[in-house]
Amino acid sequence: MIAPEGTLGQRILDLAARLAEWSDTPDGLTCTYLTPAHRAVAAELKKWMHDAGMSAEIDVVGNVVGRYRADNPSARTLILGSHYDTVRNAGRYDGRLGILTALVAVEHLHRLGRKLPFHVDVIAFSEEEGVRFSTPYIGSSATAGKFDASILDRCDADGNRLIDVMRAAGLDPKVIPTLARAPQDLIGYLEVHIEQGPVLLHENRPVGIVTSIASSVRQRVSITGSAGHAGTVPMALRRDAAAAAAEVVLYVERRCEAAPTLVGTVGELYVPGGAINVIPGHCELTIDIRAGDDQTRDAAVSDVLAEIRRIAERRGVAIETKEIARGNNVPCSPRIQRRLAEAITRAGAAVRSLPSGAGHDAMQFHGVTDLGMLFVRCGNGGISHSPLETIAADDADLAARILLDTILNFEQAA
Amino acid sequence: MIAPEGTLGQRILDLAARLAEWSDTPDGLTCTYLTPAHRAVAAELKKWMHDAGMSAEIDVVGNVVGRYRADNPSARTLILGSHYDTVRNAGRYDGRLGILTALVAVEHLHRLGRKLPFHVDVIAFSEEEGVRFSTPYIGSSATAGKFDASILDRCDADGNRLIDVMRAAGLDPKVIPTLARAPQDLIGYLEVHIEQGPVLLHENRPVGIVTSIASSVRQRVSITGSAGHAGTVPMALRRDAAAAAAEVVLYVERRCEAAPTLVGTVGELYVPGGAINVIPGHCELTIDIRAGDDQTRDAAVSDVLAEIRRIAERRGVAIETKEIARGNNVPCSPRIQRRLAEAITRAGAAVRSLPSGAGHDAMQFHGVTDLGMLFVRCGNGGISHSPLETIAADDADLAARILLDTILNFEQAA
Repeated sequence: MIAPEGTLGQRILDLAARLAEWSDTPDGLTCTYLTPAHRAVAAELKKWMHDAGMSAEIDVVGNVVGRYRADNPSARTLILGSHYDTVRNAGRYDGRLGILTALVAVEHLHRLGRKLPFHVDVIAFSEEEGVRFSTPYIGSSATAGKFDASILDRCDADGNRLIDVMRAAGLDPKVIPTLARAPQDLIGYLEVHIEQGPVLLHENRPVGIVTSIASSVRQRVSITGSAGHAGTVPMALRRDAAAAAAEVVLYVERRCEAAPTLVGTVGELYVPGGAINVIPGHCELTIDIRAGDDQTRDAAVSDVLAEIRRIAERRGVAIETKEIARGNNVPCSPRIQRRLAEAITRAGAAVRSLPSGAGHDAMQFHGVTDLGMLFVRCGNGGISHSPLETIAADDADLAARILLDTILNFEQAA
Repeated sequence: MIAPEGTLGQRILDLAARLAEWSDTPDGLTCTYLTPAHRAVAAELKKWMHDAGMSAEIDVVGNVVGRYRADNPSARTLILGSHYDTVRNAGRYDGRLGILTALVAVEHLHRLGRKLPFHVDVIAFSEEEGVRFSTPYIGSSATAGKFDASILDRCDADGNRLIDVMRAAGLDPKVIPTLARAPQDLIGYLEVHIEQGPVLLHENRPVGIVTSIASSVRQRVSITGSAGHAGTVPMALRRDAAAAAAEVVLYVERRCEAAPTLVGTVGELYVPGGAINVIPGHCELTIDIRAGDDQTRDAAVSDVLAEIRRIAERRGVAIETKEIARGNNVPCSPRIQRRLAEAITRAGAAVRSLPSGAGHDAMQFHGVTDLGMLFVRCGNGGISHSPLETIAADDADLAARILLDTILNFEQAA
């Protein structure tokens, strides 16, 4: 019943290539909120949705919402979503893979004349990456009823206020609250996404079922020791801020190796105004710790903070830590995970479950409806947020077939 | 026979305060090569030297050369020197302490009508710090006959060529080679300098005898791992450039704790374009290693490079090292060290010998004449190259008295 093998995957890749032609920049792919390129992508997606048998509109936050209607107008709705904005100098699959897999799946149902007992809404969210206004999830938070109106006063790098940019694009921010979906109207939210990491690639598996979406605890760490001449201060009399930082870096690494889903990263690290012949008096760094569950993550954060206190005391340096972000893990629906596992098994692939270390639009639907995510293997070493991001047509094809199967059997999961 | 206690020290501090009134900047003390402030300091020093009983002139490289003549015009010469330029936002004693201690000592001899069997040249070198033209020792290299004419084409931050700046100041770069002192005309070079470190302060000693001047081996280290999403790449699959850098930092520290005069510093350390949620793909750092002798230093450098290779192999990262500077230790004359020790003992202080981790004008006279250096305790934790640099009047006084005693007994050392 599902499409001939290969056809859906190649179409997904072709459509992604076409969307990648619009960019804010002459080189590479950058598509940020409400730029001309972004508006053009939205218009194109609306057209494609329409051609695939859906009603389609662009809502007041810039989401492109296509509906593949059930015969019963009062049926409930399954949302298939992901985002069409990108990071700077992006790959073409992050976000868009989920939209296009859903689009191609519905297109296939439409071609077969196959109706479902629920509406399927394919939603291309307008903003997830947080690039232009330093605030992510603008699109999906609106649909999920979690839009924070206080962000409307934020400005982009050129000083344009978000609210003014929306109005100039013909959008009416006042009516954003009306976009919120009522939980009782939904039967679930399902998102296909490129993994953006190397786990599936490393294990040679085309797809994976997301168990939960990890949210990070982020710390900003500022170390103050004592600057000095690199030639004149004996080692024993030094209070070197960079050496203290090095101990922090290695402890974060060692501690986060201790649990399978745990990861810890020092992404920023620098000696402000450092010079080759000056002992570092200051060092700045950031820590980002995530895990498949909050307990594992929080135990690691607590151990890291305790070790930082020991390092400070032993070295006679001052270390200030500031938690700048914390959110809880969002679990995926066990029932949707089971339904995805059945579809994967029927497709002849092996079932692999893994947490998502990155945040996704799906998180916004926590508490609104059951949510699920399917990861697709990321090629090229697992690189994402880069023009080097790749996906195999066969993997996209398998994802589309699994999505179709899951949709067709979705009511059984409810 | 030496001056009443206290009087010489306070005069040194008073003169240093007066010189500090000229600065390239409205706030703080910055006095770089051939700026108006620098020229004013030279003119003032020339006047002071003259008042202290010396003939005085400003030579073609900007050095202020005062001569306290022996009765015998063909006598040989003892040079007492240090520099009057400064780093940016400097302390007032680095360099100038040595000039003013020599000036005050000669002033005292002149007051007593005491002649010596050799000429004493007090030389205020025009440039040692290398701030304006990124090349140090402009003044002392000329006097020592080691001036490198190729630096004349260097430009300052405003694009002014060194040669043009010199000409505009009325100096004639063509005759710089004539400034070179003939070794047979010299009996030695002696420099008093603030320690610029905490060793004497820590041991509660006012002065120290320099055994040798360490020159550093400097490496620039560039680490390339693999960037990735902080949430999606498991610890075991990472090639984190910052974690590799942290291992390098801690190894440099540990290895350089292994010998008393050995010091090693990672002064620059940064992840280019680092972001809180990105695994560092690159990290840059510098290494500066010094010791009281070349063998100790080179053994440490060799061990550090070997460990860097092991870190690179174990972590699967590429580490490129580039030696960007290397010089050999310059030994101080044992005879001058002995003469200083005798004077220190006569002054009732304890003898402490130590290598200089920082470079000084004295190095230029290696191979030209016997050289010696006396360090004076640096207050305030040993801070230098900073407005926080301090010296006690009593310590400056003791240094002047030791210098006078050493000069008066110098011929015995020859």
